[in-house]
Amino acid sequence: MNQGILFVVSAPSGCGKGTILSRILKNKKFYYSVSATTRQPREGEENGVNYNFLSKPEFEKLIAEDAFLEYAVYCDNYYGTLKAPITEHLSQGEHVILEIEVQGAMQIRKLCPDAKFIFIAPPSLETIRERLLHRGTEDAETIEKRIRQAETELNFKNQYDYCIINDILEDAVSDFKSVVRAEELKIQP
Amino acid sequence: MNQGILFVVSAPSGCGKGTILSRILKNKKFYYSVSATTRQPREGEENGVNYNFLSKPEFEKLIAEDAFLEYAVYCDNYYGTLKAPITEHLSQGEHVILEIEVQGAMQIRKLCPDAKFIFIAPPSLETIRERLLHRGTEDAETIEKRIRQAETELNFKNQYDYCIINDILEDAVSDFKSVVRAEELKIQP
Repeated sequence: MNQGILFVVSAPSGCGKGTILSRILKNKKFYYSVSATTRQPREGEENGVNYNFLSKPEFEKLIAEDAFLEYAVYCDNYYGTLKAPITEHLSQGEHVILEIEVQGAMQIRKLCPDAKFIFIAPPSLETIRERLLHRGTEDAETIEKRIRQAETELNFKNQYDYCIINDILEDAVSDFKSVVRAEELKIQP
Repeated sequence: MNQGILFVVSAPSGCGKGTILSRILKNKKFYYSVSATTRQPREGEENGVNYNFLSKPEFEKLIAEDAFLEYAVYCDNYYGTLKAPITEHLSQGEHVILEIEVQGAMQIRKLCPDAKFIFIAPPSLETIRERLLHRGTEDAETIEKRIRQAETELNFKNQYDYCIINDILEDAVSDFKSVVRAEELKIQP
């Protein structure tokens, strides 16, 4: 059986990454890698769906066992990507989608030279502002912070293999599928 | 303006390459690179469409001027690919499709590191036999020769970037489009 392909996907918030991925993940040949964290679940979040929620000692035991592909600490909580589920699904011929911010992606770049890196970009920073305003879940200050963060993240774009601009959703989904299909057709050196 | 991409396409005869390419070339963003030759035009062949028909002195003058990307001699006739039309169309942002047999492709591999190499393969050698029999233009001996040649050409498959298996035409055309789109989305290093 052919090994699946690991697709590492990053995007500034407000790029519509979630919508694109939910469309892609309807396809059975993909496994979505769920991150592990020690932070408390928020309302509506499910264990194993949004995150694998672990206690601090559990997480640290896994660190000691070298079970993480990468992990980081934010606001006193651990966040990480477990190796085992990824390798398992890849060896079963399933593609794995790993959604991660740019620094995490760059760490994985070094560890998984066969992974393919996709950056989802907004048509412009102005579009992010409009989308976040429209979503209405963030206040003005948070939106500006998000836009400055998006600007920083866009600087990492050139470290990725592919850049998909999410202007029209249908086109972005089709572009994502083209990238996956082309990678499947690639001849392994 | 973005530079176009050079796609070098090879396939054993009987793979349906012609049908796939005619479907792809309906799209305006492609320019099909026409080979130059000193052989006589066959009935129905048009200058500038099937080949650029040149005299031997004309061809040799162009060789002396280093005007060819590659050229070869078969059965006492020259066949070659002119550089100028390719570079012109690429610089106008058009993609160029260059259909060439495997040896020619391998020469271009060295000269154009940015070109993308696509191999179109049959589902099996048996399919080639069936297609050639069905076409009914070759006798049994020629068909066997073509199949042995296809076998040899298939050995070069791993030197290409992508392999598209032409089993169902619609799928092969869609695969070709996916490769083109993915290459457009690639971030230039």
